[in-house]
Amino acid sequence: MNKAVNDDQYRPTAPLSDPEQRRRIEDFLVGYVHAIDDGDFRRWPDFFTEDAVYQIIPRESYDANLPLGILYCEGRGMMSDRILALETANIFEPHTYSHILGRPQLSENGDGTVNARSNVHITRTMQDGRMEIYAVGKYVDRIVMENSELRLQDRRVVLESRRVDILLVYPL
Amino acid sequence: MNKAVNDDQYRPTAPLSDPEQRRRIEDFLVGYVHAIDDGDFRRWPDFFTEDAVYQIIPRESYDANLPLGILYCEGRGMMSDRILALETANIFEPHTYSHILGRPQLSENGDGTVNARSNVHITRTMQDGRMEIYAVGKYVDRIVMENSELRLQDRRVVLESRRVDILLVYPL
Amino acid sequence: MNKAVNDDQYRPTAPLSDPEQRRRIEDFLVGYVHAIDDGDFRRWPDFFTEDAVYQIIPRESYDANLPLGILYCEGRGMMSDRILALETANIFEPHTYSHILGRPQLSENGDGTVNARSNVHITRTMQDGRMEIYAVGKYVDRIVMENSELRLQDRRVVLESRRVDILLVYPL
Repeated sequence: MNKAVNDDQYRPTAPLSDPEQRRRIEDFLVGYVHAIDDGDFRRWPDFFTEDAVYQIIPRESYDANLPLGILYCEGRGMMSDRILALETANIFEPHTYSHILGRPQLSENGDGTVNARSNVHITRTMQDGRMEIYAVGKYVDRIVMENSELRLQDRRVVLESRRVDILLVYPL
Repeated sequence: MNKAVNDDQYRPTAPLSDPEQRRRIEDFLVGYVHAIDDGDFRRWPDFFTEDAVYQIIPRESYDANLPLGILYCEGRGMMSDRILALETANIFEPHTYSHILGRPQLSENGDGTVNARSNVHITRTMQDGRMEIYAVGKYVDRIVMENSELRLQDRRVVLESRRVDILLVYPL
Repeated sequence: MNKAVNDDQYRPTAPLSDPEQRRRIEDFLVGYVHAIDDGDFRRWPDFFTEDAVYQIIPRESYDANLPLGILYCEGRGMMSDRILALETANIFEPHTYSHILGRPQLSENGDGTVNARSNVHITRTMQDGRMEIYAVGKYVDRIVMENSELRLQDRRVVLESRRVDILLVYPL
């Protein structure tokens, strides 16, 4: 079953207005993309709760509420396994990402969690210097506070295009 | 006559400093681009005042203060007509936009309106998955509060390139 | 010697939390990119302290702590010379930049300076309308308050690609 944070949920009907909480969440979301851009992939699972859902899904599947994603991870364990695999496999051409994140729309749920939606443009640079638009889309997130740390409980990476480089080795 | 918000006006000589007003305006500007990216085109005129001006104009015309734009709408009625036309015509290849908006420079006018200037990069994704940089430029806006709702009184979409896909069916 | 702001320094171990100071710094960083996008190159040196360091460097050199940059300026004088040279030389094809800046990670040093790291995507538009991703990377900065004005004491423009158009006439 697709447990996607649905459209209604992330629309900012009750926009988060506490400025300090907004600042912390924005810093958290930017910290995530900087960690990936800097190649700190081992830190990636730490941005999630123990049982979090992470999915990369094309927009047409997401909008149709179809569970047909490109990648699905349930739980931090699966995420760590994925990072280990990519560090040992190493059969792909080295490259780096650079994310630009739009300002998130943030709204509060009654249970203390926060829904976030942020646009994102990711460019990829290959070792020889070639650059290209790699992925474009949005993050649709549910964020929780856990032992005074922010974590993603659910992150859907909704890509505009269904044509994705099949390698897709690093998390987005 | 070109009623463009001129350069002097949008330079932040009196930067908006009230944090709550800044947050609301930033949410409003991001809400606009998310609405278009999500295909909620019917909501588009609601972002404007009844008699607002909306123009898409190449930078060279804008900088020279020439009225030669790519698209000009005066009033919410013209905007609604445009959306209706695009929904019925439907002769173009389906595609979606994704906007990334830079942080706006905001300045206050004496009359309660706020000038905003934000950079924007828009990518377009066609139905078969092709992605491209579609439009790059800036929004130069005058924003008013109307019945406790923010609205655009004047929006100039100033594009870096004068080579624009002639279709340009959706608002930017 | 390469006086690069090193990685440890710009990681936000002590994130800047004062909202008013954050707003001012964010406005300052956006003001910098808007000045360049608007072609106000003469204002460029004013964003720096008198003895500031400005460097454009590929990521692989920066990460390896090698001083092999693409451009190095020490002091506002060198920066002004560079701007004068580009205004008189004028042997390149006219073009404009458009920067989109990500939200900066900001952290405080004990001495009153602030470290900033912001991602940046720059597109270039040539006079005939051609657009392309020109440079992608991050700004790694040390910012100071000088006579109640913010200034860059050190800015490293760290580019993902080492393939850079050799012209590189405007500051990034």
